[in-house]
Amino acid sequence: MTHRFIVPGDALSGERVRFGPEQARQMSTVLRLGAGARVLALAQGEEVEVRLDEIGPTGAVGTIVARRPAAAEPRVELTLALPILRGARSEEIVEAATQLGVARFVPLLSARSVARALPEARRARWARIAREAAETAHRAGAPGIDAARSWPELFDALPAPVYVAWEEQREPRLLVALEPGCERLSLVVGPEGGLTEAEVALARERGATIVSLGRRTLRAETAAIAAVAQIMAALD
Amino acid sequence: MTHRFIVPGDALSGERVRFGPEQARQMSTVLRLGAGARVLALAQGEEVEVRLDEIGPTGAVGTIVARRPAAAEPRVELTLALPILRGARSEEIVEAATQLGVARFVPLLSARSVARALPEARRARWARIAREAAETAHRAGAPGIDAARSWPELFDALPAPVYVAWEEQREPRLLVALEPGCERLSLVVGPEGGLTEAEVALARERGATIVSLGRRTLRAETAAIAAVAQIMAALD
Repeated sequence: MTHRFIVPGDALSGERVRFGPEQARQMSTVLRLGAGARVLALAQGEEVEVRLDEIGPTGAVGTIVARRPAAAEPRVELTLALPILRGARSEEIVEAATQLGVARFVPLLSARSVARALPEARRARWARIAREAAETAHRAGAPGIDAARSWPELFDALPAPVYVAWEEQREPRLLVALEPGCERLSLVVGPEGGLTEAEVALARERGATIVSLGRRTLRAETAAIAAVAQIMAALD
Repeated sequence: MTHRFIVPGDALSGERVRFGPEQARQMSTVLRLGAGARVLALAQGEEVEVRLDEIGPTGAVGTIVARRPAAAEPRVELTLALPILRGARSEEIVEAATQLGVARFVPLLSARSVARALPEARRARWARIAREAAETAHRAGAPGIDAARSWPELFDALPAPVYVAWEEQREPRLLVALEPGCERLSLVVGPEGGLTEAEVALARERGATIVSLGRRTLRAETAAIAAVAQIMAALD
């Protein structure tokens, strides 16, 4: 299997590709690649075949052999607002939802969230997990991780239409509520303790559609992964 | 919130409900419930309100106050054949898939499975996780966990129609392949290393439909959870 590395758009210039020091270290130390080895660079929707020319401590450089549109990028752009959960449970969501095709994550502080902030180190961990999961899933770019937002700020940050999954909502189901052919949307999943009535009222005021994920009570992680899977199956 | 306990069908007799020693210990030690406390017993599709009369070391006994059909049981009966994965990853699938509504699990030994057997202790752990997840999800019964089956044995054990998710299959997508209105079906998800060509050929011979879960490569856990979520959204 060819190894895959997600690079920023400006890593490509003419026939050359540059990789950063962390990726160069992975190439030399972990994968034992040398000059002449082939890798795939994934940049802004493109899959670029690269022959490595030089791998050093400050980065690696290669020559483009072929380039093509990446096949695994979703056609729909989904932003997921997710709660900051205890332990590694938000990280599980980031990993699975990135594999499923989420474009961007917005960490969410809500009334019943346990966390009151997303420390920078944890945000960086989410970003690393998203990058690795995007590479595993053969995506051509890693989802971004926004700064954490409070509930009122959230609705300024999310592209419309916005769907909020609420366990006390009975109708409509998410799949029924989705606009067919929609190319851009946002999904909000609440924390373990659920969203408050006031939060749901504010979301409605801001134009969000409140939806049900079904008749069974789901843990926050399962709810997020299931909802993203449904959206991708319906719209991608 | 009323505490929920899944009990076997024969735990109900006349106006009385019996709970086992493990549940009695949870009532007294963890939940600090005493005589007079109300709990919900979930038995074979029914939700039974119970007033506890006695909680002792060998079990608990209560009187039925009300009974009604359980609202959270899925209308579709889904059997999931899942690989025995390293670490706690199969257990993650059992937990999430139970919340989503799976009726029965069949542990799967395939050519590229790492595990060659499912030890009884681990099967018991799956059963405990399934019971707890069913209680959390307000289901009225816990999914059963079969003994592990080899690939050829598998197709004798699975109710038709059987859908096999294979990452090398491009068409049809699972959601497109599902028979509308279907009330009983099976889903097979392969191990980390994928299914072999020979396994897929045998599945086809045995009448299974080979389906795609989309264009992105998913980890086995994500694939299983995403596929179950899609089936439940479409058929339940």
